[in-house]
Amino acid sequence: MEKRINVGIIGATGHTGEILIELLLDHPNVRITRLFNSGRGGVISRPISEFFPKLKNRLDVACAKPDWTQIKKECDLLFLALPHTVSMKFVPKLIAMNKRVIDLSADYRITNSSVYEKFYKVSHEDKANLKKAVYGLPELYRAGIKSAALLANPGCYPTSVILALAPLLAVNAIETDSIVVDAKSGVSGAGKKLEKEFLFSEIEGDFRAYKVNTHQHSPEINQVLSRLCGKKLEIVFVPHLLPIERGILSTVYIKKAPGAKFRPGGVHDLFRKFYKSEPFVRVRPEGSFPRIKDTVKTNFCDIGVKDFGRTVIVISAIDNLLKGASGQAVQNMNIMYGLPETTGLL
Amino acid sequence: MEKRINVGIIGATGHTGEILIELLLDHPNVRITRLFNSGRGGVISRPISEFFPKLKNRLDVACAKPDWTQIKKECDLLFLALPHTVSMKFVPKLIAMNKRVIDLSADYRITNSSVYEKFYKVSHEDKANLKKAVYGLPELYRAGIKSAALLANPGCYPTSVILALAPLLAVNAIETDSIVVDAKSGVSGAGKKLEKEFLFSEIEGDFRAYKVNTHQHSPEINQVLSRLCGKKLEIVFVPHLLPIERGILSTVYIKKAPGAKFRPGGVHDLFRKFYKSEPFVRVRPEGSFPRIKDTVKTNFCDIGVKDFGRTVIVISAIDNLLKGASGQAVQNMNIMYGLPETTGLL
Amino acid sequence: MEKRINVGIIGATGHTGEILIELLLDHPNVRITRLFNSGRGGVISRPISEFFPKLKNRLDVACAKPDWTQIKKECDLLFLALPHTVSMKFVPKLIAMNKRVIDLSADYRITNSSVYEKFYKVSHEDKANLKKAVYGLPELYRAGIKSAALLANPGCYPTSVILALAPLLAVNAIETDSIVVDAKSGVSGAGKKLEKEFLFSEIEGDFRAYKVNTHQHSPEINQVLSRLCGKKLEIVFVPHLLPIERGILSTVYIKKAPGAKFRPGGVHDLFRKFYKSEPFVRVRPEGSFPRIKDTVKTNFCDIGVKDFGRTVIVISAIDNLLKGASGQAVQNMNIMYGLPETTGLL
Amino acid sequence: MEKRINVGIIGATGHTGEILIELLLDHPNVRITRLFNSGRGGVISRPISEFFPKLKNRLDVACAKPDWTQIKKECDLLFLALPHTVSMKFVPKLIAMNKRVIDLSADYRITNSSVYEKFYKVSHEDKANLKKAVYGLPELYRAGIKSAALLANPGCYPTSVILALAPLLAVNAIETDSIVVDAKSGVSGAGKKLEKEFLFSEIEGDFRAYKVNTHQHSPEINQVLSRLCGKKLEIVFVPHLLPIERGILSTVYIKKAPGAKFRPGGVHDLFRKFYKSEPFVRVRPEGSFPRIKDTVKTNFCDIGVKDFGRTVIVISAIDNLLKGASGQAVQNMNIMYGLPETTGLL
Repeated sequence: MEKRINVGIIGATGHTGEILIELLLDHPNVRITRLFNSGRGGVISRPISEFFPKLKNRLDVACAKPDWTQIKKECDLLFLALPHTVSMKFVPKLIAMNKRVIDLSADYRITNSSVYEKFYKVSHEDKANLKKAVYGLPELYRAGIKSAALLANPGCYPTSVILALAPLLAVNAIETDSIVVDAKSGVSGAGKKLEKEFLFSEIEGDFRAYKVNTHQHSPEINQVLSRLCGKKLEIVFVPHLLPIERGILSTVYIKKAPGAKFRPGGVHDLFRKFYKSEPFVRVRPEGSFPRIKDTVKTNFCDIGVKDFGRTVIVISAIDNLLKGASGQAVQNMNIMYGLPETTGLL
Repeated sequence: MEKRINVGIIGATGHTGEILIELLLDHPNVRITRLFNSGRGGVISRPISEFFPKLKNRLDVACAKPDWTQIKKECDLLFLALPHTVSMKFVPKLIAMNKRVIDLSADYRITNSSVYEKFYKVSHEDKANLKKAVYGLPELYRAGIKSAALLANPGCYPTSVILALAPLLAVNAIETDSIVVDAKSGVSGAGKKLEKEFLFSEIEGDFRAYKVNTHQHSPEINQVLSRLCGKKLEIVFVPHLLPIERGILSTVYIKKAPGAKFRPGGVHDLFRKFYKSEPFVRVRPEGSFPRIKDTVKTNFCDIGVKDFGRTVIVISAIDNLLKGASGQAVQNMNIMYGLPETTGLL
Repeated sequence: MEKRINVGIIGATGHTGEILIELLLDHPNVRITRLFNSGRGGVISRPISEFFPKLKNRLDVACAKPDWTQIKKECDLLFLALPHTVSMKFVPKLIAMNKRVIDLSADYRITNSSVYEKFYKVSHEDKANLKKAVYGLPELYRAGIKSAALLANPGCYPTSVILALAPLLAVNAIETDSIVVDAKSGVSGAGKKLEKEFLFSEIEGDFRAYKVNTHQHSPEINQVLSRLCGKKLEIVFVPHLLPIERGILSTVYIKKAPGAKFRPGGVHDLFRKFYKSEPFVRVRPEGSFPRIKDTVKTNFCDIGVKDFGRTVIVISAIDNLLKGASGQAVQNMNIMYGLPETTGLL
Repeated sequence: MEKRINVGIIGATGHTGEILIELLLDHPNVRITRLFNSGRGGVISRPISEFFPKLKNRLDVACAKPDWTQIKKECDLLFLALPHTVSMKFVPKLIAMNKRVIDLSADYRITNSSVYEKFYKVSHEDKANLKKAVYGLPELYRAGIKSAALLANPGCYPTSVILALAPLLAVNAIETDSIVVDAKSGVSGAGKKLEKEFLFSEIEGDFRAYKVNTHQHSPEINQVLSRLCGKKLEIVFVPHLLPIERGILSTVYIKKAPGAKFRPGGVHDLFRKFYKSEPFVRVRPEGSFPRIKDTVKTNFCDIGVKDFGRTVIVISAIDNLLKGASGQAVQNMNIMYGLPETTGLL
């Protein structure tokens, strides 16, 4: 008999919530039983199609204030599509109820809570569960994901950057103090904030850097990469804002470690082999690089790599709302429930 | 000796203010003596280049709260680039001081104050000057503009629509109860409002109608057209929002009056002759229609017209910020001060 | 046992082909057995993922020259996603083989072949099948579609326009000689032509009308509407090009017939009832109009309607690539094969 | 009496030609006497307004095949807005006629002709004049520009990159083998090529790298920077294509030389002083970075710089068509003719 997962979403009315719902509607093993808002803002209950007209005639579930009784009875798994610093208000009780949780916020990604507090300007209220959370990047941590109770779904930039660097870092072939990442993201990465800088008249025809080398995703990237290569590492990281809706392209500049020797084609081979069995990483033919459109509306991370002698340049592209958020969350769910990893995602 | 106009702008920090400043900086007969904000909001004084970094090293004037002493001593002409309903708080005193005024708001465009009040939801506080205001569409009212003390600069949609209809209406060749205007505007028409509907993620990739047949520019258009043809007329008018920054294209559907007879090419000839001496109206060759880009960053209104027998289709294009606002205001200033009409505009 | 349709696509490498493939991959009752190009251009065979990198790891079928033996043995149903005037070179033989055919070109839409010849500049080579073709607009012709051997899938503009007019026309409540349609389409409607006018630098920031009242979709619209109201009718139709990729919004201006009487809300009711059971037409609440984004990436046609007394304004929105092309083709397939009409489309 | 320069443009119908014409029309000391095409393509003579409708009623000069008699009699200065490899067919004769020449192509920028030949795939036909050409970056070479007969106007990327690096390089404070430049350009940089990759449907919503570390502007940048710091240097350079029309933003990653010591704010001071007297370089306040829109439609290069300890990040923005091409060409003309450098450019 077919597996059936009863899913609830807390924070269903944001960008990630919207995409999650669309993915889960197409997923053969999922029933969306309940949609909740964050409980702030005073809205009691409204049909989800009032928030997303596209869902009219497709999903007739109300989005209401979180209700612990309903959660207890009707949900096996909860997705938290909440703003940073809000998720940790829900997690302790959910874990105590023995629910499995996939958190799309940053609250359980950074193991060192003082680093979290520095970048997110708030103290961490749930250090107990923080220790147990599993970082949900399947390409590196699939084994742990399988049995995770609390999964911290990676950030969008970290997904694109870590996958670009992992193959060379894992074999210690890189000068770890010279990594430069120049990343570019579409506007949806910032959610739906009503701020002047996100007006059409500000974005259209423009391009700019922001949070130059001070973005809150830097410590997340540094933490994972350091663990991977076994020494403390800090990348230089500059994110930029593209005048498009979706997608991230990261251009990564690497210097080979002095002792690292590669035959022609060797670096490319390394990438090809590293990701050979990965269903959602596609390494481009040698000399070819991905563009954002190759991955938009897909859960793929496409990677191009070229060896220029001392320097190696890697470019990765993802859809920030899919592989960079909701798609990866579903991929993690598939792993957690023993389903084929691509279910509902191809 | 060369004429020199000392100009002040009240409301200098909005979209129209910004464009006005750029035009006036290039105008050989203008000195910008003072820039003022609307007096609301509590900002006392800041360099204008803090609002518009582009003006750095180009205009070193502060934008401050309106100061009647400075206005009295240092300004011959005031441009009011203020929101609707704010201009009429300044005009009475300016007129009393014998200043000439070009008002870019809607406050002095609609002669019937009860119509104004219905569409702008506020009572008119300056009916005395309303009666004396001259409607600043040079192609129709040049004579009156020359000696105007108070000039009401036309709205953007009205400019594009009236110029498309005037030649046929002026000879009474139109069924006046069948005029349909389908207009499309770039986002800058709405100024810089911080509203969800003007976010990049809402506008990009989208297109929609708004204020369907209830837009506040309808009565302005109806008033001018009715005056032109000598009978009360009401158009059907649907504005739409384009995912671009600048420009308006109006597609106008006309039925010929039963008695109207035109030889082949006759309708086109009528347009060509009507605008023959106009420096800022360009009639396209027969069978050809303008696109928005033909007029962006210019003060031209481009018009294409084609006779389909019973139906005539006219398409006009303007830059809403120039011929539809600040450019036309400068054109009117040139007329008011006896300068060549194209000064600073070509 | 579940129904299984073996599908071949001829013309798989164009825009409509691409979207069709994506839809059919998600369709539980379809197996894509063969992909063919148009047979022109000399390409023998290449994996479809070389044309559409997104399909990599999702569909491992080559796109090759049409092969009649394969068609005969391996395809129950053929989709023709070919340019106009090319489809009619394939249809006679396919029909002779007893294959069912859904043609997405214009070749079998216009029953009067001399009208076809005037607008498509080529003589019709298959008048025999032209007579038998069923026009595939489910909302009007569902009964005939069920048993169609050859289905002419409607054009994108016609779909959006006919659905906006059908309810009022069907009850003869319209002045049939006063219908004005102002339609706006995204760029994908033009396919992937390599012409200067479709360069980014031409389209971005621009908007223009084209084929003013001479578009080849006019006769298709006129034919269906005339049939519906029982008298010959000609609309005024001006299409425009939007600087976006996908979507059509049609603004339709209607004059009520002199005798037509509606109580307040009556026109809206008429629409609501007319489309009550339609799975892919959504009538907006009274006074509300759709925007393009409501329908992009869906098979819905959203309709808003408002009664202004003598004038009624209807606005419809569709995704030109889905309800305006490939989505409607799949909807038609579902009807032809007795499947639930929304299968693979929600 | 006012200085008057009689100017001819060869290659007037391209993007740079268009912008040049617009600038020169506003320039008080210039008369455009003749416009020429490249002489290829067979067009004899057509009014320039047929190419650029915006120029209608503004410039009534025909664009014709180059005519040496007219050039000799009517032009003091020639701008060559020609494709690379075409300019060098005109220069020898122009120089022989004692005309002054501003060449906007790459033909006279790279002093080592074998490097030119490697990147532009054609042998250099005019090595004699190549030796005498002056590289027209006013901020570095103003003295030489004054008396130049043949001026090589810099490329767009080189302008943005060299200005970002010059202050630190000039004092040898940089590790010269670790410079990484991640540059992003609008589409107009590629001119108006009719290629699939420049279609709206390809560019819109997309972003990609191209010519990864192999772009033809690399040797131009390397040459100027090497000269500046006195040793051979090679940057890592990856250009990207933005879905916008105009503008370049270059993000430059620098490692300080081991011996370089700066007090807090010292690096920023260095930039501020280096460009203190430059009319077209604006250094942002410390900690602030420019966006593309700050410079679009201006001749400014805006620069932001921040010291992160071992790493310094510099971001520069220009309008590729102005400071990156035609604007800089006019700035150079002003210098060559002893005019105030900002004439016609503010």
